[in-house]
Amino acid sequence: MSHKTHCKLKFSSKLITSVCALTLLGACASFDADLEFDTKKSAARQLHDQFIVMDTHLDTPANLAQPGFDITERHDPILDYSQVDLPRMIEGGLDGGFWVIYTQQRSLTDIGYQTARDHAIQRAIAIQRMLAAHPEHFEMATKASDAQRIKDSGKRIVYQSIENSYPLGEDISLLRTFYNFGVRMIGPVHFANNQFADSGTDISGPKWGGLSPLGEELVKEANRLGMIIDASHAHDLAFDDMVELSATPIILSHSGTKALYDHPRNLDDERLKTLAATGGVIQMNALGAYLKELRQFPARQKAYAELRKESEAIGSNPTPEQFQMLLDKRRQIDAEFPADMADFEDFIEQLLYALKLIGPDHVGIGADWDGGGGVVGMRDIAAFPLITERLLKEGYSKEDLAKIWGGNVIRLMQAAEDHAASLKN
Amino acid sequence: MSHKTHCKLKFSSKLITSVCALTLLGACASFDADLEFDTKKSAARQLHDQFIVMDTHLDTPANLAQPGFDITERHDPILDYSQVDLPRMIEGGLDGGFWVIYTQQRSLTDIGYQTARDHAIQRAIAIQRMLAAHPEHFEMATKASDAQRIKDSGKRIVYQSIENSYPLGEDISLLRTFYNFGVRMIGPVHFANNQFADSGTDISGPKWGGLSPLGEELVKEANRLGMIIDASHAHDLAFDDMVELSATPIILSHSGTKALYDHPRNLDDERLKTLAATGGVIQMNALGAYLKELRQFPARQKAYAELRKESEAIGSNPTPEQFQMLLDKRRQIDAEFPADMADFEDFIEQLLYALKLIGPDHVGIGADWDGGGGVVGMRDIAAFPLITERLLKEGYSKEDLAKIWGGNVIRLMQAAEDHAASLKN
Repeated sequence: MSHKTHCKLKFSSKLITSVCALTLLGACASFDADLEFDTKKSAARQLHDQFIVMDTHLDTPANLAQPGFDITERHDPILDYSQVDLPRMIEGGLDGGFWVIYTQQRSLTDIGYQTARDHAIQRAIAIQRMLAAHPEHFEMATKASDAQRIKDSGKRIVYQSIENSYPLGEDISLLRTFYNFGVRMIGPVHFANNQFADSGTDISGPKWGGLSPLGEELVKEANRLGMIIDASHAHDLAFDDMVELSATPIILSHSGTKALYDHPRNLDDERLKTLAATGGVIQMNALGAYLKELRQFPARQKAYAELRKESEAIGSNPTPEQFQMLLDKRRQIDAEFPADMADFEDFIEQLLYALKLIGPDHVGIGADWDGGGGVVGMRDIAAFPLITERLLKEGYSKEDLAKIWGGNVIRLMQAAEDHAASLKN
Repeated sequence: MSHKTHCKLKFSSKLITSVCALTLLGACASFDADLEFDTKKSAARQLHDQFIVMDTHLDTPANLAQPGFDITERHDPILDYSQVDLPRMIEGGLDGGFWVIYTQQRSLTDIGYQTARDHAIQRAIAIQRMLAAHPEHFEMATKASDAQRIKDSGKRIVYQSIENSYPLGEDISLLRTFYNFGVRMIGPVHFANNQFADSGTDISGPKWGGLSPLGEELVKEANRLGMIIDASHAHDLAFDDMVELSATPIILSHSGTKALYDHPRNLDDERLKTLAATGGVIQMNALGAYLKELRQFPARQKAYAELRKESEAIGSNPTPEQFQMLLDKRRQIDAEFPADMADFEDFIEQLLYALKLIGPDHVGIGADWDGGGGVVGMRDIAAFPLITERLLKEGYSKEDLAKIWGGNVIRLMQAAEDHAASLKN
């Protein structure tokens, strides 16, 4: 892909500035005034707009609760670290996807579970409030058929998922509480082993050897309700258990391939083939540290550790002033000690590898926006048309792209839905 | 109070028609065109508008979930049984109050508790969605000081309460979940004894002799968080326990006086005096069946029993068509077999009795709107200025009225808040 191609898409001058400044070193400077591309969409973009374009891991609900955040206003990935909002969904042709209820894990105790439960419910409320505040822009999706209908109405699609089932404590009945919120995808585990499953990244290694007995119950209950099982973050052994146990194909909502980078967040070829053989889908992550080995800078790590301490002292409800102060400090650290970053090519390599290995019926996009995702050259969702353009160049068809962008996950949603309905009959 | 006075207030012709048609039998016919009163507010109304006017039992969240219900649109108490919406809040000078999360009680089992928990959370979400959808009209209140600030901003005050703590199951930690939603008042029990307390209306009589051990924990936790304890619906013995145990004055959010009508939903004079002596407040109910003995009509009861059966068969999520069908049938029953009803004078008698017994520092209004309240002559909140007018005529001062309409419950809110803060220091 040439640098010129990058800039052909109709971006606002603001975005072109930020993308180009960081990736293309001035090569795009003249495109800002290139009216030919501002008034006419490329063929690739016109195709892009026809697909149901969904990302299966939008961590944006975390931002919804931040002081002053307005989803209908444009933000900037460099200035305020936000990657998803309505103006950029429109610009990037992102119809929606799975909006994540993520909860950080603390102790596996009653008080830990209760605090997490309340946090997860507050996240769910933040999504409900967004839906209620902007009914002309967003609509909740709970069925496979909702995606096309909502896109056709000109609104954005809001499926919901749970990342880390830790907030359910040991009370599986809480899964229905979240199902009632509209949640239709559930990942049992996150960075560390919990009551349901082993994590791929727990430094102590697996505790259960995959799913715990309670985790098996969770999968069965999710199947019963009609939810997609998400094995991202799970240990390989837990992935094996989920594939084996789930009555419907599972998803990896934001993961990568181990063949290209050996990291516990990525899957080996054998497991990817098993995933495909059972009808499942991997949605490709764009979180740099999982795409390739990145250099670590001790000064940067130290500064971030101090900032984290300061943030934790303030707690989860900062005042607008505190929030701004933390943001300023973060910007300062990033300016003083820039991070090593993966780039668009690293992401594309992962995507193309997975596509080649298991085919376009089993691969999609889940870039972990607002949750650590984003690479140089694709800093936010506004850059999504680049993926379409690139895959077309690589020879993927319109039909392939329709599956990759939305068709595959809709198929999984339909399977989960059909299974739940079959149990009722 | 003369009939003429009734109609002096600036009501829409629609309301005048319905109020007059039912209560005054044509005596007001000429007022509809009385432009003098349509263009100039009475002195009483001008005073009314200065108070923080709150009702402590708005069951309106039940309506928020109904198909097609829009809180910003005007409804009609006769045609669709709705009693609270924004246009009528403005018309009746109702600044807001406590919006109720009510849950019907089923079996005292895990499955019963879990289903109820999910229902209560859905009610809470309905309130959150209302707040998010209409930020220019409604604002959530969680502190005593919020009431005046919100009134001054021209918005409506949304405190929240829980009627029936049954949805908490045996997990007291769920109280904090609702506290996080903004809930600041909690009633342990409703029509029947539950895990927390004895009900005044359980036909089997008291089971615990007041509060259960879990109910005592609930009261302590509510105190700790900074919530007002609500003894409406509780058995007298449970009232006694709450007065005794609560660290801050308790409320009866919608109750009456036993001296005027001996009903388990009403309090005897001794208990009312105890309530006042401990700083508490009774908010006067306007639910006819608790105001006086009403005649029962077997044909009407039978028709309603059948309608209830039909409604239960449809379940809690009727389609708009089913909802309309049920509404039509209800209207038909009410036309064919009209109910015996209490009237405005019955309500005023209760109010004046309580005021005389324990004084204006301990009496307020909680008419049970959208939950069974409303009397001939005060069918909905639009009629609220009638109360102000009447109390002024009875000799109550501006200062008295400010307490009755809002000051008293704000005082209880402040006490609950201060107590919770004192525990943190």
